[in-house]
Amino acid sequence: MQDVFSYIEQNRETYIGWLQDICKQPSVAAQNRGMKETADMVERFVREIGGEAEQLETSGYPVVFGQFKGESERILSFYNHYDVQPEDPLDLWHSPPFGAEIRDGYMYARGVADNKGNLMARLAAVHACLQVRGKLPVGVKFIVEGEEEIGSVHLEEFVEKYADRIGADGCVWEFGYKNADGRPQISLGVKGMCYVELICRGANTDLHSANAAIIENPAWRLLWALNTLKGPDERIRIEGFYDKVASLSDDDQLMLEQMIYNEEDTLEKLGLKSFLLDLKGIPLKEKLIFQPTCTVCGIVSGYIGQGSKTVLPAEARVKLDFRLVPDQDPHEILALLRKHLDEHGFSDIEIQSFTLEHPARTPLNNPLTRAVVNTSKQIYGMEPTIMPMSPGTGPMYILCQHLGIPAVSVGVGHFASNNHAPNENISIDDYIQGIKHIAAILEEFAKEV
Amino acid sequence: MQDVFSYIEQNRETYIGWLQDICKQPSVAAQNRGMKETADMVERFVREIGGEAEQLETSGYPVVFGQFKGESERILSFYNHYDVQPEDPLDLWHSPPFGAEIRDGYMYARGVADNKGNLMARLAAVHACLQVRGKLPVGVKFIVEGEEEIGSVHLEEFVEKYADRIGADGCVWEFGYKNADGRPQISLGVKGMCYVELICRGANTDLHSANAAIIENPAWRLLWALNTLKGPDERIRIEGFYDKVASLSDDDQLMLEQMIYNEEDTLEKLGLKSFLLDLKGIPLKEKLIFQPTCTVCGIVSGYIGQGSKTVLPAEARVKLDFRLVPDQDPHEILALLRKHLDEHGFSDIEIQSFTLEHPARTPLNNPLTRAVVNTSKQIYGMEPTIMPMSPGTGPMYILCQHLGIPAVSVGVGHFASNNHAPNENISIDDYIQGIKHIAAILEEFAKEV
Repeated sequence: MQDVFSYIEQNRETYIGWLQDICKQPSVAAQNRGMKETADMVERFVREIGGEAEQLETSGYPVVFGQFKGESERILSFYNHYDVQPEDPLDLWHSPPFGAEIRDGYMYARGVADNKGNLMARLAAVHACLQVRGKLPVGVKFIVEGEEEIGSVHLEEFVEKYADRIGADGCVWEFGYKNADGRPQISLGVKGMCYVELICRGANTDLHSANAAIIENPAWRLLWALNTLKGPDERIRIEGFYDKVASLSDDDQLMLEQMIYNEEDTLEKLGLKSFLLDLKGIPLKEKLIFQPTCTVCGIVSGYIGQGSKTVLPAEARVKLDFRLVPDQDPHEILALLRKHLDEHGFSDIEIQSFTLEHPARTPLNNPLTRAVVNTSKQIYGMEPTIMPMSPGTGPMYILCQHLGIPAVSVGVGHFASNNHAPNENISIDDYIQGIKHIAAILEEFAKEV
Repeated sequence: MQDVFSYIEQNRETYIGWLQDICKQPSVAAQNRGMKETADMVERFVREIGGEAEQLETSGYPVVFGQFKGESERILSFYNHYDVQPEDPLDLWHSPPFGAEIRDGYMYARGVADNKGNLMARLAAVHACLQVRGKLPVGVKFIVEGEEEIGSVHLEEFVEKYADRIGADGCVWEFGYKNADGRPQISLGVKGMCYVELICRGANTDLHSANAAIIENPAWRLLWALNTLKGPDERIRIEGFYDKVASLSDDDQLMLEQMIYNEEDTLEKLGLKSFLLDLKGIPLKEKLIFQPTCTVCGIVSGYIGQGSKTVLPAEARVKLDFRLVPDQDPHEILALLRKHLDEHGFSDIEIQSFTLEHPARTPLNNPLTRAVVNTSKQIYGMEPTIMPMSPGTGPMYILCQHLGIPAVSVGVGHFASNNHAPNENISIDDYIQGIKHIAAILEEFAKEV
């Protein structure tokens, strides 16, 4: 592979430029900003490096679908997304979120880690192989959706409509990170999600807060409702919530024990003294990987500007995400939440549901997992850490597990890439190393039996 | 008084124009918008109707001080404020907040009810008396501050610095409202206030919410802390909070029984089925007037825009107002709150304090109260309802009670004036009637022994 690796090094600046170009193009699905421009740009990239490309329509943003022939029948697909999270809070960014500024070896941009860095590394790897060898060892498919950050709301529709196009022998999933000590993480699944907004309403207008003595405050009601969902012990109090949580297999236990999670570096980087509930070691890793969550992602009511305003709010809203583990079902969790609120006297609180995604897992022992693990050792010079499941979420169930396609996550982010947060970044060296890793995986996957 | 009343009627359009002029001038103290322009405008009004006027400096916004000589030694002061609340949420206004649009007999503007309508009615009354009679029956002082909506933060300093200027035999307080049935309310005191912002911090940056399995969420912590302050029974759980709450006197009980509060109209207007805790009748009135409150005026954390964003917030903030009743002390309440949070494991939650005001009361039996009550019957053709204390707040303690000056609240607002809320308004007829009422009070107060 040294010929391909050398080519990648020689074209380092070109590949960095590709990444800057796409990062400078906003693509915020939640706000419908720059979505068409970005889909067009991805389609153009696939074409320019020698693939066939088209935009497959859905009821939402189109999926960019790319295809490259290979020497063998085996097909490797790449699942990525061209949409990004909203960039606020803006004032915490040290450079413009869509500036793609490079400082001290890191590129900063909304989406550079999640998910444009991985998308461009994979396109660059295919480009390098074709330039050097004139052909690819396996067939390649790119499935690049535009709604991952809003819960892949039309991906199920896409899978049904284009089932004949997306078949593959393995899928390299969209994300991947290095630990604080530089060790690559490979993960073999994702948590599911039930994302909801709860809305509690009071009087038909905001009122002077003197009225709060006798008029119900929807902010207090929402707080009390939330308090019935989870207390400081972190146990989710919805009846039946844990009923379908699968117990850990011996393999899971072993993977947890072997999984490397650098507690000290993580805490230092985040300015924290301890993890939640003072967890450490295996119980910490088990909670991260195998436990579902209930998270306040956003809450708002009343006056939130500078200084004081004495107002009794008319409305209060909270955004909650439940991350789910096998075999929880997001639709069932949504129904349990409704039932819980009703039974606790909060039937007036409205639920709007957003993302509903199943958890998914890939077995440890299959050709793709082996190809990714073996090449990791070559590229990074150390054993990767294998996570039995990522604490993050994605449509792996409908796109892979459901179709019997093994999916493995590996990529160019690092533990402090600030995905979904201000100053999102990746290391330029990680990006170049990630391009080489994908090139190596293409070759290795052709050989694995 | 018919001569003065006729003059007021004839100059109706002039006085409406005065009010529109001042309402079109924004004066948001919390945001330092238009404060100097508005103070200058008030000073100019006092001069133009024949008084002496000056701006008395404080460390904050100046107090506009106006003086008019009278036939008797007796002095009546008017306490008003030229600042207004912020106008957001903007999208709920049906006309621009600083447009002072008149629709169907009502003028709509931020500050028209709180407090520019009352200020202009009082200036207009003095103007009318002087135009018709050439002199005032009693001496008049205007004390018009610019920080009422941010808790009169420099008024204590002002009172100490200008103690010799503000002496009076009675003070007509800034606000006053009609009930839903058109009956004027007269109130004889105000609640106190302790307004704070609580800030809870987590990691040093927002994070991808996948991390919420093992990293503490400051939004949840703040919710749990708030839950220790008050539960659905509305009882405030801070130890010692109620210790200094005075019990009701026989006079208080009598006033409560006689006080008219139109429950049905209020509920209908606000689109509600019932009051807090299903209260009705005297217990409802007692809670409104004599019970302290703890109100979430604003809460914010994480992503609050459209759609979903899976973020673990770095920070959560809540704005709380505690309305206090005699003899609670806002400084003591602040200390009790700190102690409560510390003792419940929330010593990391920061408290920023804003308004700290004592409650205040005026006796039922004194010349000013009698003058206001007696003239009310003449002007409005019905008995006013007397509230032993207003559920609202103001610096009555430092400006009046503390100096032995009785203070009575009466004014041109109505029960649905939407103070501090979108579409703040007063009735034009109420405004004109309010001008007449002040003119009558000036004459009656000269006679009362």
